Amino acid sequence: MTVAKPLEGVIVLDLGQVYNGPYCGFLLAQAGARVIKVEAPGGETLRRRALDTSQCYPFALLNAGKECITVNIKHPDGAKLIRSLAREADVLLENFSPGTMAQYGIGSETLCADNPRLVYGCSTGFGNSGRYRDYLGMDITVQAVSGMMSITGEGHGPPLKAGAAICDFLAGIHLYGGIVSALYQRERTGRGAVVDISMQDCMFPPMATAIGSYFFTGGQLPRTGNRHPALSAAPYNVYPASDGHVAIICIREEHWRQLCEAMGEPHLANDPRFRTMKDRAANMDAVDVLVGDWTRLRAKEEIFEITQRHGVISAPVRSLADVVADPHMHERGSLYWQEDPAMGDIALCTTPLRFREVEPPRPESAGGLGEDTGKVLGELLDLDASGVAALRDSGAI
Amino acid sequence: MTVAKPLEGVIVLDLGQVYNGPYCGFLLAQAGARVIKVEAPGGETLRRRALDTSQCYPFALLNAGKECITVNIKHPDGAKLIRSLAREADVLLENFSPGTMAQYGIGSETLCADNPRLVYGCSTGFGNSGRYRDYLGMDITVQAVSGMMSITGEGHGPPLKAGAAICDFLAGIHLYGGIVSALYQRERTGRGAVVDISMQDCMFPPMATAIGSYFFTGGQLPRTGNRHPALSAAPYNVYPASDGHVAIICIREEHWRQLCEAMGEPHLANDPRFRTMKDRAANMDAVDVLVGDWTRLRAKEEIFEITQRHGVISAPVRSLADVVADPHMHERGSLYWQEDPAMGDIALCTTPLRFREVEPPRPESAGGLGEDTGKVLGELLDLDASGVAALRDSGAI
Repeated sequence: MTVAKPLEGVIVLDLGQVYNGPYCGFLLAQAGARVIKVEAPGGETLRRRALDTSQCYPFALLNAGKECITVNIKHPDGAKLIRSLAREADVLLENFSPGTMAQYGIGSETLCADNPRLVYGCSTGFGNSGRYRDYLGMDITVQAVSGMMSITGEGHGPPLKAGAAICDFLAGIHLYGGIVSALYQRERTGRGAVVDISMQDCMFPPMATAIGSYFFTGGQLPRTGNRHPALSAAPYNVYPASDGHVAIICIREEHWRQLCEAMGEPHLANDPRFRTMKDRAANMDAVDVLVGDWTRLRAKEEIFEITQRHGVISAPVRSLADVVADPHMHERGSLYWQEDPAMGDIALCTTPLRFREVEPPRPESAGGLGEDTGKVLGELLDLDASGVAALRDSGAI
Repeated sequence: MTVAKPLEGVIVLDLGQVYNGPYCGFLLAQAGARVIKVEAPGGETLRRRALDTSQCYPFALLNAGKECITVNIKHPDGAKLIRSLAREADVLLENFSPGTMAQYGIGSETLCADNPRLVYGCSTGFGNSGRYRDYLGMDITVQAVSGMMSITGEGHGPPLKAGAAICDFLAGIHLYGGIVSALYQRERTGRGAVVDISMQDCMFPPMATAIGSYFFTGGQLPRTGNRHPALSAAPYNVYPASDGHVAIICIREEHWRQLCEAMGEPHLANDPRFRTMKDRAANMDAVDVLVGDWTRLRAKEEIFEITQRHGVISAPVRSLADVVADPHMHERGSLYWQEDPAMGDIALCTTPLRFREVEPPRPESAGGLGEDTGKVLGELLDLDASGVAALRDSGAI
C-alpha cells in the first residue's frame, strides 16, 4: 500500500548549515516537503569542508533530496530575493549565529510581516532570549554547559564529551517538531509562528536522571563509566567479549534469573550474594567478574543472540564497520547502500520518522552548489533566464 | 500577547513508561494537547521506582500537566476500556516491549480499525520490522549497538556511554515529530497513521561525522577523549579552570586570533607554530599547554564571559548544581523553581519547543496514581460512579 507522505505540498527554504538546521531540513524533505537548500555562493560551511575531507559523507546524508540554490544574503538584492522567496514559502529555517538574518534586513519580524502564514524556525545555542542569547554555541560546548560532560567518563578521569554530535541532532529534531506543530496550528488559525529552539534547552530533559539524583542526595555523584549512575543495579556494565565488548543490564529480578540461564549457570540466581538487586549491587565487583568471565570467551554477536533469546537486555558495542553493515537496519530499510562518485559504496539512512506500511523514501543525491537556482527562481518567482543572469552578474546569487 | 497553543483540542492517551514515551507525552501536553496518562493499577515502572528513590524527580518532570488514570490492560475489561478510550482519542502512544499491546488484543491494527482517525505512535528499541524487531533495547544498550560507545572515551580507555539517557529522549522527540506529522496529514486525508519509531534508527544520523571519517579513511579512528575526532582542529578540547573545566574550540582562523586576544597574547596568532589550523593541529600538544596555562588561573564562568565577548565558541563544564541554577535558563523561562512535598525546592523545565511571544507553560504537577480515573471515564465514556466502581471491583482499573 502506498500512502502519500505527510508534508506533501509544503515548501521549505532551508538556510541550515552543518548539522542542526540541515537535519531538520532532511526530515522535512523525507516527510514529503519540497525543501530548497539556500546557500551562500561559496557553499555552506559543511559543503566547503566537504571539498577535501571526510565531511562529504555527512553533507551527502543530510542534504539528500533537497534542491540547491545559492543566494548571497549579504548583498541587498540577495536579501530582497530571500524576502520574495519567503512570500511563496510555508517554512523558512536557519541556524545562523544569533541576529544574522536581522542584520541583513530579513529577520523573522520582517519575513512574517510580509507573509503572515510563514513558519519561521530557528535554532541557536542558547535561544532568542535570556542573557546568553548572543553567545555562540556548538555541539561540544553545549555538552559542557548542559552538564552532560559532568556525568560522562570514568571516576578517575576527566569529564568527557559523548562522541556523537548529540546536541546538534537533538536540536534539529526539536526544530522539526516545533515547525510541524506550527504548521498544524496554521490549519486552524491561518497564521504562522516563530519557532525558537535552543540547543541548551533540548539537553535539559535527557539530564533528568542525574538531576534527580542531585536533588535526592544534595550533591553530584562521581562519574561511573559504564556502570549504573547511582551504582544501584548489577549487572549493568559493558563487558569484554572475545572480539570487543557487549553491554548487558538487568533492571528487574527476572532479568538476572534469565541471564543466569543464558550463561548456563541457573544456580547463581540462588546464590545469597546475588539473590536481590540490593545484594547484587552490594557485590557489584563479583557480579561483573562472573558475567565478564562468561562474555570474554564468546563473540559479541553470539552473546547478543543468546542473551536476547533469554529475554535479557543486551547489545554488542558495535564498531562503525558493524554499524554501516547492520543487517537489521538494511532489512528494515533504515539504511541503504549507494555508490558515491567520490567515496565509493556508502551506507545512507532514511528518516527515523517511519510510518507503518509506508516505504521509507530513498531520496536523490544532494544537488551541486546552486544547481537548481535557475529552476527554483523561475518556478517560484517567475524569473526568466535573463533575470537570473542579471542576479548572477550582480553577485546576488 | 497570548497565543493559543498549537495542539489545543487534541486528546492523547499516553501509555508511555520511564523516559521515551513519557517525554513525547510531556511535549504534547506542553503544546496544548489533553494528555491522559494511562498506567497499570500498580503504576508505571518509573512511578514505582519513584516511591523511594531519586527517580521521583524525572517522574515529576516528565508527567507534569498530565491527567492520571489506571487501566489494567491484562484484564479483558481493561483492554476493552482502552478500545473505548481509543475511539474517543486522537493519539495513542506507547513504548512497551514489542507486541505487548497486540498480546492483549489492543494492537494498532485493532485500534485503528475501530477509529480510522487515530494516530497510533509507538517507540521500541529496534522498530516494528527487521530481524531484531522483538529484541529488547534500553538506552545503554542502544548506545552500544548504535556505535555511540565506540567513539566515546579516551584512546587508552574502554568504550564509554554518554552519561545522559540520550537514546530515550532522542526517540521520544522523534515520536513527537512523527505523531504531529500524522496529525497534520490527517487534516487533509481524514485518516490517522501508525508511527513506528526505533531508538536505533534515531541514533544513526548523529553518528554522521564518525561514519564519514570511517568511509573516508577505510577504518575507525582511535577514541580521542575531548579532542577533535580526527585530531585536525586545535584548540579543540576541555581545559582545566581554577574551579573545574571549560570547553573551547576554534573552528575558523578568526576564532584563534580572537582567542589570542582574549588571552592577552595577540602575538601568538603570528607564531609560525600556530598560524593556520594545519599548523595548530600539528602542534596540538603545545596549543593545549598554552591555552591550559591561561585557563587554569581563571574561574570557568569568567573564562566563558571573556572568550564569548571575543567571539570564541566556549562554555564552562557545568556541574549539576550549576545546571539547575543556570541564570539564563531561568530568565528565559526554560527552568522554574517549584516546591515539591518530597524533594523540597526543585528546578523543573518547560518544553524546548518554544514559540516567540508565547509564554512557556508551567504545568500542574503530575497527578497521583489513578487520581483522574473517575473524571476521565465519566467525561470520555459517560461512565457514572457505579460503572467506575464496578470496573474497580473487577480489577479492570
